[in-house]
Amino acid sequence: MFHVGSRSTVDLEEEITPEEVKSILLRFVFQSLDYDNSENQLFLEEERRMSHMGFRCLEIRRWVICGLIGFLTGLIACLIDIAVEELAGYKYSAVKQNIEKFTEFGGLSISLILWAALNSAFVMVGAIAVAFFEPIAAGSGIPQIKCYLNGVKIPCVVRLKTLAIKVFGVICSVAGGLAVGKEGPMIHSGAVVAAGVSQGRSTSLKKDFKIFEYFRRDTEKRDFVSAGAAAGVSAAFGAPVGGVLFSLEEGASFWNQMLTWRIFFASMISTFTLNFFLSIYHGKPGELSSPGLINFGRFDSDVSSVSISFSYSDAYIHRPCLQVMEAMLVAAVTATVAFAMIYFSNDCQPLGQDSTEEYPLQLFCADGEYNSMATAFFNTPERSVRSLFHNPPGSYNPLTLGVFTLVYFVLAVWTYGLTVSAGVFIPSLLIGAAWGRLFGILLSTITSSQSIWADPGKYALIGAAAQLGGIVRMTLSLTVIMVEATGNVTYGFPIMLVLMTAKIVGDYFIEGLYDIHIKLQSVPFLHWDAPPTSHWLTAREVMSSPVTCFNRVERVGRIVDVLSNTSTNHNGFPVVPGKICGLILRSQLIVLLKHKVFVERASSRLSQRRLQLKDFRDAYPRFPPIQSIHVSQDERECMMDLNEFMNPTPYTVPQETSLPRVFKLFRALGLRHLVVVDDENRVVGLVTRKDLARYHLGKDGLEELQLAQT
Amino acid sequence: MFHVGSRSTVDLEEEITPEEVKSILLRFVFQSLDYDNSENQLFLEEERRMSHMGFRCLEIRRWVICGLIGFLTGLIACLIDIAVEELAGYKYSAVKQNIEKFTEFGGLSISLILWAALNSAFVMVGAIAVAFFEPIAAGSGIPQIKCYLNGVKIPCVVRLKTLAIKVFGVICSVAGGLAVGKEGPMIHSGAVVAAGVSQGRSTSLKKDFKIFEYFRRDTEKRDFVSAGAAAGVSAAFGAPVGGVLFSLEEGASFWNQMLTWRIFFASMISTFTLNFFLSIYHGKPGELSSPGLINFGRFDSDVSSVSISFSYSDAYIHRPCLQVMEAMLVAAVTATVAFAMIYFSNDCQPLGQDSTEEYPLQLFCADGEYNSMATAFFNTPERSVRSLFHNPPGSYNPLTLGVFTLVYFVLAVWTYGLTVSAGVFIPSLLIGAAWGRLFGILLSTITSSQSIWADPGKYALIGAAAQLGGIVRMTLSLTVIMVEATGNVTYGFPIMLVLMTAKIVGDYFIEGLYDIHIKLQSVPFLHWDAPPTSHWLTAREVMSSPVTCFNRVERVGRIVDVLSNTSTNHNGFPVVPGKICGLILRSQLIVLLKHKVFVERASSRLSQRRLQLKDFRDAYPRFPPIQSIHVSQDERECMMDLNEFMNPTPYTVPQETSLPRVFKLFRALGLRHLVVVDDENRVVGLVTRKDLARYHLGKDGLEELQLAQT
Repeated sequence: MFHVGSRSTVDLEEEITPEEVKSILLRFVFQSLDYDNSENQLFLEEERRMSHMGFRCLEIRRWVICGLIGFLTGLIACLIDIAVEELAGYKYSAVKQNIEKFTEFGGLSISLILWAALNSAFVMVGAIAVAFFEPIAAGSGIPQIKCYLNGVKIPCVVRLKTLAIKVFGVICSVAGGLAVGKEGPMIHSGAVVAAGVSQGRSTSLKKDFKIFEYFRRDTEKRDFVSAGAAAGVSAAFGAPVGGVLFSLEEGASFWNQMLTWRIFFASMISTFTLNFFLSIYHGKPGELSSPGLINFGRFDSDVSSVSISFSYSDAYIHRPCLQVMEAMLVAAVTATVAFAMIYFSNDCQPLGQDSTEEYPLQLFCADGEYNSMATAFFNTPERSVRSLFHNPPGSYNPLTLGVFTLVYFVLAVWTYGLTVSAGVFIPSLLIGAAWGRLFGILLSTITSSQSIWADPGKYALIGAAAQLGGIVRMTLSLTVIMVEATGNVTYGFPIMLVLMTAKIVGDYFIEGLYDIHIKLQSVPFLHWDAPPTSHWLTAREVMSSPVTCFNRVERVGRIVDVLSNTSTNHNGFPVVPGKICGLILRSQLIVLLKHKVFVERASSRLSQRRLQLKDFRDAYPRFPPIQSIHVSQDERECMMDLNEFMNPTPYTVPQETSLPRVFKLFRALGLRHLVVVDDENRVVGLVTRKDLARYHLGKDGLEELQLAQT
Repeated sequence: MFHVGSRSTVDLEEEITPEEVKSILLRFVFQSLDYDNSENQLFLEEERRMSHMGFRCLEIRRWVICGLIGFLTGLIACLIDIAVEELAGYKYSAVKQNIEKFTEFGGLSISLILWAALNSAFVMVGAIAVAFFEPIAAGSGIPQIKCYLNGVKIPCVVRLKTLAIKVFGVICSVAGGLAVGKEGPMIHSGAVVAAGVSQGRSTSLKKDFKIFEYFRRDTEKRDFVSAGAAAGVSAAFGAPVGGVLFSLEEGASFWNQMLTWRIFFASMISTFTLNFFLSIYHGKPGELSSPGLINFGRFDSDVSSVSISFSYSDAYIHRPCLQVMEAMLVAAVTATVAFAMIYFSNDCQPLGQDSTEEYPLQLFCADGEYNSMATAFFNTPERSVRSLFHNPPGSYNPLTLGVFTLVYFVLAVWTYGLTVSAGVFIPSLLIGAAWGRLFGILLSTITSSQSIWADPGKYALIGAAAQLGGIVRMTLSLTVIMVEATGNVTYGFPIMLVLMTAKIVGDYFIEGLYDIHIKLQSVPFLHWDAPPTSHWLTAREVMSSPVTCFNRVERVGRIVDVLSNTSTNHNGFPVVPGKICGLILRSQLIVLLKHKVFVERASSRLSQRRLQLKDFRDAYPRFPPIQSIHVSQDERECMMDLNEFMNPTPYTVPQETSLPRVFKLFRALGLRHLVVVDDENRVVGLVTRKDLARYHLGKDGLEELQLAQT
């Protein structure tokens, strides 16, 4: 979830209304990213100077970066996995010993307290890190990455600190036994790695390696972040193709063969790295049997299609202390509920050879048997999912499954609102697998058949797909991820049908989880197409107007005044003497002001200090605010020559252009500003992301949304 | 290969030079497709009239069409497979009986003659169909589909007749034992099915079902053709995800989630349909073990990376009779060579349980043994590939493999230039598998290890991937196709590495096979990006100028004259009174002229006959030539009001826009015409596909190509 809000110092009372929260959030300004190169004179000169060989070197560097992204993402996934395994292993064996000890003597409440205390401790550490140091690291980070790839920058989302807190937080919350997964955060982690590596420096660490300077702009960075997100998916699920498709589904507007190929390379390296190191950790080097954080296990080679929508509780608790306490409470409750269910269940199963449980609990079962309910709770969720898929028919009592589904669902919903780094993939899969298996068992009871239709593990798989699909509403990429995770192409068709049904049914009621988040935060997110019934709108109605324009040679004072005006807060300014002749960005003006690229009114134009493209790149991406730049009264009277720095050929559209046409241009080219001109080529308006994103197809046709400023 | 040229009545002598051929080809006009909607008044009025419900119905119709495309493509694949199996089965058993009879008595030359005659007969029938009735059906059709998706229309490429001839031709040439495969043509077949189904009519059959009329324009049709091509790949290789990626890699400029999801649906339906019917044909209904025309068989779960480039012989033989005779000759030679190799080889192998040969030939081997060379030739190439992948170590003699590789390579190269419908996928896979296996055997001999590195079947797989990758230079899609065809995700990484190496090595020497074809035909094909060193070119240098413009209300005589002028042959005309105020297409003008939408000079404007969007759709896509429209001398003096029909908001760029920027706009939006304007919004030039496609990155930097007109 977004925790941008919690960075604010506004003291929110619990009784605050959602409307008030919204209005506060609306004040937060999301930066748009500019995926269209500003082809100004400096840029063109550099490109023209560069030889054929130079471009080839750039290409090679891009490949190297993608390889690095894949490698580091794989390493991080490996680190998380090993840490969780170790911590959870320690916890489970401690609790297991304790339970075994007290089962004989009575006094199991001590075991419960131990368990709850251990869970709470882990979760506390994680929640403190997130709540006090980097609230943006909460949740899976997938909505934020979706926004980034779409062209909206959520503050701090691709910083190194975020990554560190995220990794630490995930380890704590998964080891703390919360109903969460470690897969979602991998996507965010991969994206941060990519943003860092591709820039060749860390602004937080004040370390600049002076490499990859060419890639310091939004266009190039976006491409690498796509690769990072793909590498994250790949490491999480062992699904390199799924990762590529995820990146494309969420981010790409323009498909480029070489780019896609590089993204795939990063994904492959990522899963391979994870596989390589995990197999060493598991003592089986070279076996390469762990392509992802979760493996569904191999299915040897039918369809139910129910989808439910995950509701969620956004607690609106914004004080860090309260957040930490809430997280600890949930951890303790999770342990207690699990304990109660294990205690009161009497579903004993024989200890088999082929079961995947690592910590079978005997409890009150006969010798040679284990408590089946305990299996479901006393395990990392990844293992539980695998057990539900692969344990032989009869391993689970229908009642156990039913109660487990309900309880875990409630826990997962509650957990989802917490300020911890964690993903929703695994709990969804687990809930889906549980009721899918239940459905399969009931079906085989009713039909009393023992044919292939009777393997409840397959129903568990389909249920898991349906549940996850209903929540995240991903389509092609999720199908491929599920297929790659099962390692069996045969299940593609039923999984696709289930995901399709889940999406159709879900979309009828409410948007997907990520989209709900994005909408709640009023992020100006651009979907694939303009709403179909928007042809009657034209650029004239959509655009912002009047537009603040600058002259080719503008007075410094005016520029400072315009940039300082917080009520408008524009980011792009058409350059005119009458007709449109260029577009200049706020960030460019800031750099110009910072370097005092002024000419005195009287002197010749040549005295203007010459700026390099490098100066802009060094300032990227954290351009200083206008308030931090001091301009003296004398300097205010100087002039600034924008000719060299403005983009002389911005895209323009006439006023009569229909909204879908404007939208297509905007989306396909990744624009941030589109100038609207009249017949005479005079600027009449400016279309920004927000102008387009506010139109939305509701139940009764076109609706206008309230959006945060860009 | 393209056989557009062979439709001409020009009598080509064999001694014609390539330059002359080129100049003749240059006269052939390739139509560009317009993937940007012409948003004129008629269109906007229709869109604005349409309700939310109406758009939903359209969406449902799109899904139905995709389902139909998948189903029909699957059926066609099934038909081809069954027909080939039956015919080849008949041939092989006849020849086998004959050989067995004559092995005892001597006189094997009779067997040879029988074999050669059977092959030639099959090939003759197929070649006659192709050469005399539809030369465009020759080859795999993949370059043509690539061009179509890129926006260039090769005449007759998506017609029903082409499909019929193609299917028939493939059956004949595969059954005739040529070194060809039936997979490539499936892609073309799927595309034709899609083009037909989505339009709801067949122009060839003069049958209009009056459905799907909304989809009768280039934009919508392109989307469906993408789905058809994907369904074709899916049926050919049992690779639905690979199919989607193929379509995207070759065609998509703008990625849309719903579109991709529909394409995937078509792919899934296609492989499922094929699987369903083939499993019934094989007598195992419900087992669904044949997802594609070729199955590599399941690999249970290492890397060499050599790539060679396939040279090819384009015979420049354009007389149909000669073409048929050449095809027959190749068929006979193929049989003879195979026979000679079988005859002179003495590589006997014991008859095993696990070998996949259906027609083992004993020949001069001892009882209980079979001739291994005969296996390689006496089988459909699909089976041979599978044998090379899966037969246990020791099944093949290195010498046999070496000779086979060489001979088959030469045969494949010769065959490739023939006028038969056939694909290059399978022969490439077979050659690659053969030398891959040979490589594996040699390696294990040298290292004399018996570890996992010693399974030559895996080397065969990698060799097959390398060979195919070196020829077609597909990247992500080919990796996924190979992975899906092997059914094992584990091989993804080595296959990716091999394909990457093959592409890098291959690209150093020459372009991929399909690109060579496209270039040979001077097709104005737009690649992903402008050449990197083209920033110094601007729209001013690139554009065609001067441009023929029309007035908003133009004299009919002038329009007819301009359209009849064969020397210019423009397809889009800016509409101006001074400033640009619209763009009208040749096809629209043709329809207007055909319906005589004229106003007399004196009369009021209202008397103009009102045209519907339907009139344009009915004429799509075969607009009559201007010569077929009679305009009387009186009518020439009438006026035509273009206001309602022109696109009032064409995309424009200023003259200073750099080539990469123009290119990106053009490619991302699928434009056909881009108007270049000056500061005052006056038309100064027009950029068409040809203007952009002629710039090409050669060894020494930017080169200009000669291209066919568009």
